[in-house]
Amino acid sequence: MHRKKYKIAILGATGAVGAELMSILLERDFPIAELRLLASPKSVGKTINFNGQEIAIAPVTPESFDGIDIVLASAGASVSKEWAAIAVSKGAIIIDNSSAFRQDPNVPLVVPEVNPQAIDQHQGIIANPNCTTILMNLAVYPLHKVKPVKRIVAATYQSVSGAGAKAMDELIKQTQAILNNQEPKAEILPYPIGFNLFLHNSPLDEQGYCAEEMKMVNETRKIFNCPEIQITATCVRVPVLRAHSEAINIEFSEPFSVNTAKEILSKAAGVRLIDDWARNYFPMPIAASGKDEVLVGRIRQDISNPNCLDLWLCGDQIRKGAALNAIQIAELLIDRNLI
Amino acid sequence: MHRKKYKIAILGATGAVGAELMSILLERDFPIAELRLLASPKSVGKTINFNGQEIAIAPVTPESFDGIDIVLASAGASVSKEWAAIAVSKGAIIIDNSSAFRQDPNVPLVVPEVNPQAIDQHQGIIANPNCTTILMNLAVYPLHKVKPVKRIVAATYQSVSGAGAKAMDELIKQTQAILNNQEPKAEILPYPIGFNLFLHNSPLDEQGYCAEEMKMVNETRKIFNCPEIQITATCVRVPVLRAHSEAINIEFSEPFSVNTAKEILSKAAGVRLIDDWARNYFPMPIAASGKDEVLVGRIRQDISNPNCLDLWLCGDQIRKGAALNAIQIAELLIDRNLI
Repeated sequence: MHRKKYKIAILGATGAVGAELMSILLERDFPIAELRLLASPKSVGKTINFNGQEIAIAPVTPESFDGIDIVLASAGASVSKEWAAIAVSKGAIIIDNSSAFRQDPNVPLVVPEVNPQAIDQHQGIIANPNCTTILMNLAVYPLHKVKPVKRIVAATYQSVSGAGAKAMDELIKQTQAILNNQEPKAEILPYPIGFNLFLHNSPLDEQGYCAEEMKMVNETRKIFNCPEIQITATCVRVPVLRAHSEAINIEFSEPFSVNTAKEILSKAAGVRLIDDWARNYFPMPIAASGKDEVLVGRIRQDISNPNCLDLWLCGDQIRKGAALNAIQIAELLIDRNLI
Repeated sequence: MHRKKYKIAILGATGAVGAELMSILLERDFPIAELRLLASPKSVGKTINFNGQEIAIAPVTPESFDGIDIVLASAGASVSKEWAAIAVSKGAIIIDNSSAFRQDPNVPLVVPEVNPQAIDQHQGIIANPNCTTILMNLAVYPLHKVKPVKRIVAATYQSVSGAGAKAMDELIKQTQAILNNQEPKAEILPYPIGFNLFLHNSPLDEQGYCAEEMKMVNETRKIFNCPEIQITATCVRVPVLRAHSEAINIEFSEPFSVNTAKEILSKAAGVRLIDDWARNYFPMPIAASGKDEVLVGRIRQDISNPNCLDLWLCGDQIRKGAALNAIQIAELLIDRNLI
């Protein structure tokens, strides 16, 4: 049988997510007819090796999207806002990693393991959710399907990769400086992150929540198609390179058996249960890095409320939190004959 | 007026808390007649400089406590269990940093800003609470006094100093190894902590809580003298050297105004409000290190429950989390004419 191949453009090819998109396209043997690598003018002139072939970075122009089937965009919200409509007008479908269109009612916001059907309504733009939200949703949705979640109290431990490749470099450089008794320089992140941590520095709203926290609230409601779910979150940046962790307290309307929760999560798509009580071994960022699945463990009955469970998770922020989820959305387009 | 001076013994003089006890005794000009430094036999032969004087480390024997007024113990629970009764039988008062006696109904568990009166019932042993608990209690108790707290959901970000001076060395060495592309060696902590984090590795109970988490539950109940307060906690070790951070969600029986909470905490003993919304600047471990106060900020109305507030805090684990609180207990003994 002839397998159809697709012309793909990566918008933001030089970033941490761009690099991961390319390696996941290869790993999963995505059917590619052509790969176009687009980035800002300052990267033009560079080439990137993809599957043995040197591909020149091109600047973004309207013609960049001619003939393209799928645009994988990870160059930030302003770039996505500038180019999405143009790409769509040329017949491409854009899978956008930025926050630009996530709350647009005409744009599906998709975690393939959670709400694959939402993709059917797409009008050219499909939004990839926030990384922290994707990881939490993979662990919470399988429970929510069985007994609806009333409220979540989340605290996050977010790696610097969420702020991009330059933030990862900054953590390394600051750490080296501190070990050499030098002042750490903060250029990408607002404060030194080496041997430190701080509340997520995205803009604060009038309610006192930062943008990252409100993404967890609003995107979960949209993905679960459950506007009544109540969520509070405290988002924190920690000196870890590329996997996010989350402490999640989940309230249901009635008790949810820990054993049932473990059984459900042991079979849930995109989840790997790491729940080794004998060894006191649970998910860690270094174990989650490079993995497709979100690692979930330490599922326990909350002793402070009979209707609550506590759980802990770690997931690769660049991978399932961004690049992998975007490529799974592209695969879903193919599976559902939407392209 | 003649100021009475006291004979002090430090049990566990070579550890991270032992060193901090000595520097805080000096800083606060504690009235010392004599300082005896006690440690395990392997440290015997070493000397420590205290206020210009070289003091030899002595092994612990029953005679170590002869004539001593106050023992500041920070050598772990088994050492405290071995020596506390002997020290008391010799007429000393022991202020114990370990968990050995904290739940003993005959032993006051004291945070001087919270329950100073509890010390009056002492019978020779006074327990210094767990570090994470002390920091949380400083921030929560002033609110609890105004409207009783029903429930707390806490997630912690605990520095390696909580596992002692050797764990601090281990974080540094592992980080250097990782930066040099070598395997990090985990000898003190169970897993590599450099650029990583993991759930607190204290023993798990049959409910699924680790000992550190249950300290937050049981010690808070005892310190607040409020057995009905409901608490769940997730305790996490992070690659930070010496200050702990905590994300705290507090439920009251009715709404608690954010402005009132800020006003109360801006005046609370042992608390410094760091709540700069314009600059998006809130407490951080590097800002809390070396400070006496717990830094509290980002106090906000929880949007998921009208009766809840969210707040964030950082405090020096070795200082207010251990050594400073112990010395404040000693000062309280003097102030209340108990010694």
